[in-house]
Amino acid sequence: MVDTNAPAHKPRVVIVGSGFGGLNAAMKLAKLPVDVTVVDKKNHYTFQPLLYQVALAVLSPGDIAQPIRSILRENKNTEVIMDEVTGFDTVGQRVQLKSGTELIYDYLVLATGSTHSYFGKDEWAKLAPGLKTVEDATEIRRRVLLAFELAERKKLETGIHPELNFVIVGGGPTGVELAGAISDIAKLYMTKDFRHIDPSMAKVLILEGSPKILRMYPPDLQASAVKQLKALGVTCRTGAHVTDIQPGHVMVGDEQIESVCTLWAAGVQASGLGKIVAEGLGAKTDKRGCVIVDEHLNPGAHPNVFVIGDLAHVEENGKQVPGVAQPAMQMGAYAATRIGLLISGKAAAQKPFHYFDKGDMATIGRKAAVARISWPFHAHWSGFMAWVTWLTVHIFFLIGFRNRFSVFRQWFYTYLSFQDGVRLIVGSQDLPGWGNLNKPGAPEQTVPSANVASAAPAASH
Amino acid sequence: MVDTNAPAHKPRVVIVGSGFGGLNAAMKLAKLPVDVTVVDKKNHYTFQPLLYQVALAVLSPGDIAQPIRSILRENKNTEVIMDEVTGFDTVGQRVQLKSGTELIYDYLVLATGSTHSYFGKDEWAKLAPGLKTVEDATEIRRRVLLAFELAERKKLETGIHPELNFVIVGGGPTGVELAGAISDIAKLYMTKDFRHIDPSMAKVLILEGSPKILRMYPPDLQASAVKQLKALGVTCRTGAHVTDIQPGHVMVGDEQIESVCTLWAAGVQASGLGKIVAEGLGAKTDKRGCVIVDEHLNPGAHPNVFVIGDLAHVEENGKQVPGVAQPAMQMGAYAATRIGLLISGKAAAQKPFHYFDKGDMATIGRKAAVARISWPFHAHWSGFMAWVTWLTVHIFFLIGFRNRFSVFRQWFYTYLSFQDGVRLIVGSQDLPGWGNLNKPGAPEQTVPSANVASAAPAASH
Repeated sequence: MVDTNAPAHKPRVVIVGSGFGGLNAAMKLAKLPVDVTVVDKKNHYTFQPLLYQVALAVLSPGDIAQPIRSILRENKNTEVIMDEVTGFDTVGQRVQLKSGTELIYDYLVLATGSTHSYFGKDEWAKLAPGLKTVEDATEIRRRVLLAFELAERKKLETGIHPELNFVIVGGGPTGVELAGAISDIAKLYMTKDFRHIDPSMAKVLILEGSPKILRMYPPDLQASAVKQLKALGVTCRTGAHVTDIQPGHVMVGDEQIESVCTLWAAGVQASGLGKIVAEGLGAKTDKRGCVIVDEHLNPGAHPNVFVIGDLAHVEENGKQVPGVAQPAMQMGAYAATRIGLLISGKAAAQKPFHYFDKGDMATIGRKAAVARISWPFHAHWSGFMAWVTWLTVHIFFLIGFRNRFSVFRQWFYTYLSFQDGVRLIVGSQDLPGWGNLNKPGAPEQTVPSANVASAAPAASH
Repeated sequence: MVDTNAPAHKPRVVIVGSGFGGLNAAMKLAKLPVDVTVVDKKNHYTFQPLLYQVALAVLSPGDIAQPIRSILRENKNTEVIMDEVTGFDTVGQRVQLKSGTELIYDYLVLATGSTHSYFGKDEWAKLAPGLKTVEDATEIRRRVLLAFELAERKKLETGIHPELNFVIVGGGPTGVELAGAISDIAKLYMTKDFRHIDPSMAKVLILEGSPKILRMYPPDLQASAVKQLKALGVTCRTGAHVTDIQPGHVMVGDEQIESVCTLWAAGVQASGLGKIVAEGLGAKTDKRGCVIVDEHLNPGAHPNVFVIGDLAHVEENGKQVPGVAQPAMQMGAYAATRIGLLISGKAAAQKPFHYFDKGDMATIGRKAAVARISWPFHAHWSGFMAWVTWLTVHIFFLIGFRNRFSVFRQWFYTYLSFQDGVRLIVGSQDLPGWGNLNKPGAPEQTVPSANVASAAPAASH
């Protein structure tokens, strides 16, 4: 048992959230004379850059997620509490938790990241899931795989090959990754598994509202991404504003686009903690709910409170630092360093936070990617070379992570064999918009399979 | 594309269910001049003997489950339909599916197995999940891990170490496996992860209604199992009839037994198809709903219909064949062989079904087991030797299964390292009976941790 009555003189740092930012802060703080409490509503850290590979059934959740306790096990100054923050008492320096417990803090690091934004259309969430958590990934996997299963059943029943349109709303890195991966599994991995449908007839469509996909990338890489997506059979439509999402279709203005499976990769907003921070600490937020922080990552007049990662709105030279892994990690390290300097009274000497931009990458299927490299040299790479870079960097990121070799082995196996990933459908067998599969279909011009008695069985059965 | 207009003269075999029985039948039928349709409401086969290792976070679902399509990919005469059987038309020889489709059959193999029986108390299902599916395993994992997380929070809040009683209803092989595995993870794997509670203080209790645990085993192995369980800290209470299950406790008569997590391993009954078979084919069922079949595994006057595995009630010399993997596989093979003989007109020469009993095994934690071996020699083994046998047989069973080496590696790693399995809590953060953790607790005689402001925060916050 660990002594819970830690010496009173050790400052207490409470970290809320354990993504790239929060965990990086916790790792740095392990070496400082502080006590650390990490609060997260989940028990596990999720390596988000590979989440789409869980969604597309290449990896298992356990390959890319790990209990926070295990990660921080050797940090003897650190405890982990699975709970949710509901409020702050800045006078008493207390964090209020959902369970009713209050935690005293000397320093506070807030790093709960972002969540999907449906731009006020929250009813779309059930029809077009986004990809932020392991649960999201499992749900997307369920829907994508189920679309093929239901299509096979429909073909058997009616003799007509159903349309297999997958619509991805949003052409940022996540949208591009999902699109490439769906195209891959349809064209490469599933073709031998079905007897009636041809999975390679699946069509993948990206609907992007802005004029360009991957709009944070330089124009040459945008153009290359479109070309690489086209080679995979993915269609990109830009300037396409989705006006409605219904079971089985998506509306772009008056145009109805059929969709067996709609996925959301369009908008993000600050996690729910953003609002609590705004109210509890009197902090300002931007239109996405992200907390506006100063050059030391403090929200307004709270030098002992840090907001980092996707939850923070950080500007440098008038330009917003992007909400991706690298800046989140750097902010975590900065906040931890600053806490150490504040404790030792040397914080005045610290420079403002500076985002050291090493570049950006988005993968497109199993052997293509785009990479904007700004360190250790400047380059724009596309295609296989960019993909190898992406693979290397992501394996490097997984260092220290239990399953690095397992993930690599699984990738390598899937890559070489064109075979199974982890294609389990877990949960319900229903898919929005396919309810008509549970009713007898209209048998127009059908060529039912040999062993199907009737495409429209008599109601008397 | 596969030609769906198969030659009309090939007899069509419809197999419903793809466990040990159904898949084994499908594998044998791949070599016969028939067309095979496998119908299952899930898209994957589950290797049930290792399901408890998913439940206790050693393995991932993807390690022990595999899409049925992948398993049967090379069987060119076989198609797979993800659907559910809702009825039979024995005159027209048709299987009615939930989607509305009807499948014509010449031969029918019914193998949908068994499900939990709560002896009419279906309201217990939510409070005490059983272990039959990947979804069940994930839910049990969630509950077991969450109990430790909530206990840590409770200890932090109140300063009192909460009781960590796990109650398992039923002392058959599944109950014994779950009990041993919970004790293992509590005592061996989780102790370094928590700062406030001592996970090894968890208590595991098996409540068995009959006078003996593992009642299908010989007395010497029953006694050995009790002894081995005791060494792991598991208490076995026999003759203990559970009369009620509530959030947070279990009743045995008037005695209330506290339980942070109750699991069900007590009763099984035929899957829902049993009733449909009874009604649709006029078959007789036993008290568990299993279809009573003759010596050729036919239910009554239907020589072209076979009921196999846990769904069947088979008697040999007045003794019922047990509902485990070996007999299910043997029945699958028998039915397939018989279909071949019926087609070639040689069925009269076939002997009745005979269960070739190779033995039984139940594992008890990470290095103990009991094994009753009846082939190739007779023996009763206990302890480590039995465990090695169990391990060997289960790895042997996994031959041809994609993840055999992955599973072995994961086991070996977990076994040697005492470290992480796949301890992810996925889904809700609530646990029945722990609702009080979301309210301020009564602070009697508390020694709150250093950083906790108040065990009972003022309501005005």
